[in-house]
Amino acid sequence: MRVNKFQYTLSELTRGLEVTIKGDPHCLITGVSVIQQAQPGHITFLTNSLYRKHLAATQATAVILSEKDAEICNIHAVVCANPHYIYAKIAEFFAFPSINISGIHRTVVIGVDSRIDKTASIGAHCVIGNQVSIAKDVVIGPGCVIGDGSSIGEATQLDASVTIYNKVAIGKRTHIASGAVIGSDGFGFANQKGVWHKIPQLGGVQIGDDVDIGANTTIDCGAVDDTIIENGVKLDNLIQIGHNVKIREHTIIAGCTGIAGSAVIGKHCMIGGAAMIQGHIHIADHVMITGNTGVNKSILESGVYSSGVVGVVTNQEFKKNNARFHRLENLTQRIKLLESSLKELKEEQNK
Amino acid sequence: MRVNKFQYTLSELTRGLEVTIKGDPHCLITGVSVIQQAQPGHITFLTNSLYRKHLAATQATAVILSEKDAEICNIHAVVCANPHYIYAKIAEFFAFPSINISGIHRTVVIGVDSRIDKTASIGAHCVIGNQVSIAKDVVIGPGCVIGDGSSIGEATQLDASVTIYNKVAIGKRTHIASGAVIGSDGFGFANQKGVWHKIPQLGGVQIGDDVDIGANTTIDCGAVDDTIIENGVKLDNLIQIGHNVKIREHTIIAGCTGIAGSAVIGKHCMIGGAAMIQGHIHIADHVMITGNTGVNKSILESGVYSSGVVGVVTNQEFKKNNARFHRLENLTQRIKLLESSLKELKEEQNK
Amino acid sequence: MRVNKFQYTLSELTRGLEVTIKGDPHCLITGVSVIQQAQPGHITFLTNSLYRKHLAATQATAVILSEKDAEICNIHAVVCANPHYIYAKIAEFFAFPSINISGIHRTVVIGVDSRIDKTASIGAHCVIGNQVSIAKDVVIGPGCVIGDGSSIGEATQLDASVTIYNKVAIGKRTHIASGAVIGSDGFGFANQKGVWHKIPQLGGVQIGDDVDIGANTTIDCGAVDDTIIENGVKLDNLIQIGHNVKIREHTIIAGCTGIAGSAVIGKHCMIGGAAMIQGHIHIADHVMITGNTGVNKSILESGVYSSGVVGVVTNQEFKKNNARFHRLENLTQRIKLLESSLKELKEEQNK
Repeated sequence: MRVNKFQYTLSELTRGLEVTIKGDPHCLITGVSVIQQAQPGHITFLTNSLYRKHLAATQATAVILSEKDAEICNIHAVVCANPHYIYAKIAEFFAFPSINISGIHRTVVIGVDSRIDKTASIGAHCVIGNQVSIAKDVVIGPGCVIGDGSSIGEATQLDASVTIYNKVAIGKRTHIASGAVIGSDGFGFANQKGVWHKIPQLGGVQIGDDVDIGANTTIDCGAVDDTIIENGVKLDNLIQIGHNVKIREHTIIAGCTGIAGSAVIGKHCMIGGAAMIQGHIHIADHVMITGNTGVNKSILESGVYSSGVVGVVTNQEFKKNNARFHRLENLTQRIKLLESSLKELKEEQNK
Repeated sequence: MRVNKFQYTLSELTRGLEVTIKGDPHCLITGVSVIQQAQPGHITFLTNSLYRKHLAATQATAVILSEKDAEICNIHAVVCANPHYIYAKIAEFFAFPSINISGIHRTVVIGVDSRIDKTASIGAHCVIGNQVSIAKDVVIGPGCVIGDGSSIGEATQLDASVTIYNKVAIGKRTHIASGAVIGSDGFGFANQKGVWHKIPQLGGVQIGDDVDIGANTTIDCGAVDDTIIENGVKLDNLIQIGHNVKIREHTIIAGCTGIAGSAVIGKHCMIGGAAMIQGHIHIADHVMITGNTGVNKSILESGVYSSGVVGVVTNQEFKKNNARFHRLENLTQRIKLLESSLKELKEEQNK
Repeated sequence: MRVNKFQYTLSELTRGLEVTIKGDPHCLITGVSVIQQAQPGHITFLTNSLYRKHLAATQATAVILSEKDAEICNIHAVVCANPHYIYAKIAEFFAFPSINISGIHRTVVIGVDSRIDKTASIGAHCVIGNQVSIAKDVVIGPGCVIGDGSSIGEATQLDASVTIYNKVAIGKRTHIASGAVIGSDGFGFANQKGVWHKIPQLGGVQIGDDVDIGANTTIDCGAVDDTIIENGVKLDNLIQIGHNVKIREHTIIAGCTGIAGSAVIGKHCMIGGAAMIQGHIHIADHVMITGNTGVNKSILESGVYSSGVVGVVTNQEFKKNNARFHRLENLTQRIKLLESSLKELKEEQNK
């Protein structure tokens, strides 16, 4: 539940959105809530049919829902084609207000030849390198480090404790969460007589507009050319992106996923949590990869893809499954034997 | 091996603990050691039967062990029901002394309306936001950031470089390791015409008493309500906790595990490393999940659970296993054919 | 593509390396590039036979390649036994120049009894504890924290925002990327009546010479003895190393891998991404573990090892595979039945 000191009418909350209001557009909304816990004054939402059963009993004053669900609704309703999206827009009214005072905190250390727009806000104890460019309305949280020659586009936000190496270009309206590291050296070593020698990582990182990068996610710089994250890409927490990976527009990737070097992920892909994507492969546009999938080869057509065996079972059953799996060769041999015996038997019978 | 400048008698080390001393309670102990490497003056422990064979030859002056193992022991012994726990208590005497000078380092930056107890210790280059509350005996390492409106309970310790967002409430005697990020935005986006729109994450995080959070672990804030980590929960390094997850009391989770949004984990659960737990599922109390398990549905009864296929083998054998697995349909068809052939044969024979 | 303001002749670039130049050793090289995108003036490399087809059409001025590939090459060539290694050495000429001014930034906070060589460089907002030793030519990026009693060997480089706990000894020429955490408490708890009690982690961490540690990787301190990373080990990003792990010389480990407590990894091993290695096991020298492998027991001989089932397929096929897998017991029973029926049939026939 999130309640603000301000209140809004339904028509204020939905101005400019493609919705139909059923009920009173002037009813007052003071907060947002999930459907089971909503109180009078709250607006809630119905985006998952599992929660439809709670609609009759909700205490909410209003609800965002689809036309189909509106039929069974007896409170004020914001009816729309995409309740999830409309909720996203309405929830913005109730977000925690961020108090960003423009200006550079007195403790910030800045190198030479850097250009920082006067509307930018840079938090305490940040360190900005040489020849860094920071555009207007950028907000940089406390404790960030930005390396030489990097640039941050208009209205981009870095939360606290983000580390940007040098040679990193970040677009507009992008958001990077705490602990993310962008532009660290790619993992490249050449073996000579048993000893690994570092291959200098000469590339940078290009990050587009409207990108979201999660907490403690790491993105390596390119080996020769740049690592590229295109516009609208959304990355969750604790994701590893290897050198020279290219992720194309509007792809979304859940947490704990690893993408090895030089992989190319298409546009509008959805990649589930803890997926592991091998290096040098290509994934087409509009591909969905389910969670935990190991992608060991290129995927050339859109569709839904998975790997391995899933399904949690008791450890006892798991041990049996495991044993059966490791006896597959035995089963195969027994089937072969049955086939030949049966053939013999038939031949004898037909004599 | 850990040796301190101080020495203690066995009776000093075990004061207040439920143990029986066999041998001399006044013998002097100068350090702790594993059983194979112990030297005279050291106390060691026997908590794993694999190491029983080293008992006869150990150079240790004393050993912590169970009654059963005490029978074969010929050095000074601390006999008890739970040697692991008794070791934990005794080892505290030999821990690296932390020198925390109470007070706020001169380089700390503090916002407005924050209340910091005069016994708290705040390290160099920390940034404390507005309306933050820091209770007595709190220790905050250097380089931490604490967001607006967050609170840190009595005797809680943050190691260096921890990032706490706003809306985070942390209980008493909790310990958070370096690089952990608490309260980052949950991963919520609504798709409208192929473009992902951020859903404002309005909730906070509640962390109980006596919680342990590992290095570089990330815990997202809730979408509407809070993400909740209850009392006594222990989280290892590099764990990802999604928005609105609830982890109940005294559950312990090993490293590299990911827990997707809105999952609820019961009390006293044990979750192995690199487990991946799907969103919106429930796990009952007293459930053990083995390492590497993908939990794709709710678990309603206590017990031990696993998924997939395990067992490392040579890559050659692995390739065979893989091929057999992908021929399972072929095997099934061959069995069907055998069954029908055999049936025919029997019928003919019985004619 | 990486172009520098400087230019070098082929003979300058290869001085001291075991190569043969075919063509003009005095031709001028201004940058490095991948073979498809190289421009006149660039040197490129051929280390992967997949790219052999681009050799004829490349615009590069020179190429690093093996003797075999040199036969089909008609540009200036650096011919050698190990083109990967020779490229690593040549690329160093074109690396982003790091401008490290020796000296301690005025914002650095330093404890008591620490010794810092006058040639070391320590970036803004670093915090150095008590009794820390920093050798000559060490470079420490901004925002790092180094705990009490730790030591950093000659010419070692810490990028920005690295956190080193106390009791950590780091060798020479080692490189640690941003966000890495070294020496956090191991994950050790003893359960007493349902409550987890912390076991003090008394050990430290020893890191050898020429080690590379990736961004946001975590290495715990030992429980009693130290965690040990030997000379020449290379660790990628987001790796978790548990307490008392020992990784021996020249082993290389890809990202997202987890190694549980007390595991010992031999020399010259190669471990693929997202491998999960159980605690207390031993892996021999010269072992290769493929990506995504769960290592659940010791590996005593060199070789290539894997686990599980791999191969990404459509979700439809995956669901079938999964169903077949979970029907393995059924298949086994049907085979048993076939075997006994067939036996009966044979016996009858032989009557």
